[in-house]
Amino acid sequence: MELAEKRAGADSINAIRAIVGDERIRTAKADLYVYGFDAGMHCNIPDAVVRPRTAEEISQILKLANERNFAVVPRGAGTALCGHAIPIAGGVVLDLQGMNRIKEINPGDLLCVAEPGVVCDDLNAALKKYRFFIPGPASSEAATIGGMAATNASGDKALKYGAMRDYVLGMQAVMPTGEIVRFGTRTLKNASGYQMEKLFIGMEGTLGIITEITLKMAPLPEKTAACIAAFKELVEAGQTVSDIIAAPIFPAQLEIMSDICVKAVNKATGLGLPECGGFLLIACDGHPEQVKDEIRKVKEICEKNKAFFLDFTEDPKRIEELWKGRKQMLASLSVLKPEFSTIMLADDMAVPISKVPDAVKGFLEIQDKYDIYIPPYGHAGDGNLHTKVLLDTENPDHWHQAEKAVREIYDLVLRLGGTVTGEHGVAISKAEYFFIERADSIPFMRAIKRALDPNNILNPYKIFDWDKSFLHNLRYPVQLAGKEKAN
Amino acid sequence: MELAEKRAGADSINAIRAIVGDERIRTAKADLYVYGFDAGMHCNIPDAVVRPRTAEEISQILKLANERNFAVVPRGAGTALCGHAIPIAGGVVLDLQGMNRIKEINPGDLLCVAEPGVVCDDLNAALKKYRFFIPGPASSEAATIGGMAATNASGDKALKYGAMRDYVLGMQAVMPTGEIVRFGTRTLKNASGYQMEKLFIGMEGTLGIITEITLKMAPLPEKTAACIAAFKELVEAGQTVSDIIAAPIFPAQLEIMSDICVKAVNKATGLGLPECGGFLLIACDGHPEQVKDEIRKVKEICEKNKAFFLDFTEDPKRIEELWKGRKQMLASLSVLKPEFSTIMLADDMAVPISKVPDAVKGFLEIQDKYDIYIPPYGHAGDGNLHTKVLLDTENPDHWHQAEKAVREIYDLVLRLGGTVTGEHGVAISKAEYFFIERADSIPFMRAIKRALDPNNILNPYKIFDWDKSFLHNLRYPVQLAGKEKAN
Repeated sequence: MELAEKRAGADSINAIRAIVGDERIRTAKADLYVYGFDAGMHCNIPDAVVRPRTAEEISQILKLANERNFAVVPRGAGTALCGHAIPIAGGVVLDLQGMNRIKEINPGDLLCVAEPGVVCDDLNAALKKYRFFIPGPASSEAATIGGMAATNASGDKALKYGAMRDYVLGMQAVMPTGEIVRFGTRTLKNASGYQMEKLFIGMEGTLGIITEITLKMAPLPEKTAACIAAFKELVEAGQTVSDIIAAPIFPAQLEIMSDICVKAVNKATGLGLPECGGFLLIACDGHPEQVKDEIRKVKEICEKNKAFFLDFTEDPKRIEELWKGRKQMLASLSVLKPEFSTIMLADDMAVPISKVPDAVKGFLEIQDKYDIYIPPYGHAGDGNLHTKVLLDTENPDHWHQAEKAVREIYDLVLRLGGTVTGEHGVAISKAEYFFIERADSIPFMRAIKRALDPNNILNPYKIFDWDKSFLHNLRYPVQLAGKEKAN
Repeated sequence: MELAEKRAGADSINAIRAIVGDERIRTAKADLYVYGFDAGMHCNIPDAVVRPRTAEEISQILKLANERNFAVVPRGAGTALCGHAIPIAGGVVLDLQGMNRIKEINPGDLLCVAEPGVVCDDLNAALKKYRFFIPGPASSEAATIGGMAATNASGDKALKYGAMRDYVLGMQAVMPTGEIVRFGTRTLKNASGYQMEKLFIGMEGTLGIITEITLKMAPLPEKTAACIAAFKELVEAGQTVSDIIAAPIFPAQLEIMSDICVKAVNKATGLGLPECGGFLLIACDGHPEQVKDEIRKVKEICEKNKAFFLDFTEDPKRIEELWKGRKQMLASLSVLKPEFSTIMLADDMAVPISKVPDAVKGFLEIQDKYDIYIPPYGHAGDGNLHTKVLLDTENPDHWHQAEKAVREIYDLVLRLGGTVTGEHGVAISKAEYFFIERADSIPFMRAIKRALDPNNILNPYKIFDWDKSFLHNLRYPVQLAGKEKAN
């Protein structure tokens, strides 16, 4: 499929200006440049950036887009890693960060209501007073709940606390054709027709624009304790993970690191973790006595699987420090090879929990075949593994090696019964592998897209409509022979 | 819209016979009669009943249905209360109870895989060995997991443990046009395109036929304790519910009964509950120390809200006895007025948790205006309220009173911010009110239905396609003036 541009011309831009006023539309080159990027590897410059404040404004803009055939791309904080918010066909970016009111916190109904631009950490700061929270991604300082809903974001607490799809009870949304609708309910249960509010989780801005979200809340745990364990072999760490789940114990967090990651974290943070083949960080939370019992059982399971180092802490400062090390993984990895850049590729595979050791070992074997680095780590408790590709962005050969290695990684993940994305989404950078994973169901996803967005104006060419390699529209100044010239 | 019949003629039936063999198709009048009913109030006789064993057989039957334009209606145990499995346009009923293999129980991956005909209690009996379970509806002795998935079933543990939409990780399904597809994953996290497996929860057999389900499992609690509390005023019981949630304490079960229900249960079971304006049954489960603390706090909250009777038990036998009383509510109610029948109307409203007392009071006020009985009870912890209508089925005036009263009940529920169905679904009996609740989103549900089932052969005229009153196709031998003659 050829990517047909869906540019917004001067007439369209003037018509949008009439809707939102001069103050909330930008067309200056410097502004547009910024909105050509997200936290991923792609880039394309929009024709205008608009900051709507109401569902009604968005409705008018979408109706205009259908009349005039320009693309509309919703955007939260731009923390997505796969190109979600890149206006790949041109058109207008809707920056929803201005719609950031927390409208209601209702502990007696176990829900809160907020606009899509509310930042995850801000919402949690407000919920904390009531002893509630919602689990957020590693980027929770910036990520907005609208973006989190649109991508089915989760994070390191998903095993025990679930993902966005488990929290969204209802929403107001603007459909691609401009209708303002309500999906879901203010009730914990709902069997009232198709669960449109669940379909909208993970739709990556292709089926509608979420303008208000009703979220269930989780109770803040009374107590948290952490345990760290080092194993000579990665496979021992992996077996420990499966044994913990089967106990059954659901830790709040259960992270796995391979040797290269432990080295990187130590080098970058000075945490002094023991060097080993496989490392686990485990946090249990809840009632103090339950936490005590769970940590005791976790230690027993670690010992059974030959952990040679075990440490336990209830000190909130030490726990924070340990998790900070984990959160800085991405930054830490870059110190391993300072002349390389960290590229958002193979960033987010998920496998069945018991397959975590096979996956991590396989990734390392694949890495060994190439000149580039692909250090694996991840949320082992829910089978969600992350890597990044470290390469020299000015070296075309590195890019082609990355193309091959990433393909091998995804082939392995699919062989292990996994998915190409656990929490980051598809957008552009994972489309090629998604086509393999979901070959049988893509026709039906497309049918839904066509039914709801007949003119294909809403975030076009994402998920199942991006049929090129990830090497197109790169943000890096590299010339790839035989490939489309990157920006 | 006129209901166009979609009958399967002799040629079609012969073609189906060629697919499944003589043994697994029935066309004898006595067999067809049975499959004209579910646990609800409607009836229509199919042309054939087929018992497929594989997705491939179902695929072939659906392709045939598209060629020959006959309706196909999937059916589990037939425990649905709203007409889901009634072949309202004629055609073929697919009885999926024969597809009842538990294919995998995998504690280390935290999932199990089963065919749709597996009975909920049978699955839980198998999971128990591994110390896991999935929450089921009151009909769990008979209900199948396929039917539970198709209706987003839940039950009395939804506050703490969620509904089917929270457990289904993936599925194999046959699309209306016959394609066999896989949705979702074997991983706890999945951001891999549209969450089709979530859209399919609650689709009531209108978008596809589920042929295999991958379910997340919940850990069996170590300990359960129960508390019963009686209040002079219903509103005090309601305030207690909101205060418990806001604490935050999430009981495993939290049931509310009004005076009439307490009387009915006592009369039917001899449980000897104290007569009162509002009655709560509360169960907490989990770690023993957590349960102890939660029950203590629950008692404090009950006392603060003026409970005049409080009892607490850890005795599993007493807990079972109390819950048996609650489970027998439906049977119990019928003893109040033995000459009336219990009709599945106004059976399943949900409101925001804090609105439970307003809803229950309102239902009782509505009841007082009519000669029929509408005794409310329900899962107060998640705002899910049940009533039934008790009336003389041979009295046409009672039916017309029911029509008015039920409309008033749903108007109240929607005014309180609720939904017309928390867990039973829409199908036929709730369609009229569903049209009011979801007026804005129905066009988009219809668009999805048309996109996936272009010939409208799969469970047609359900949810948003039933545009008549519930007084059509009744199973009761009543003549309603000005209405279509019931069966």
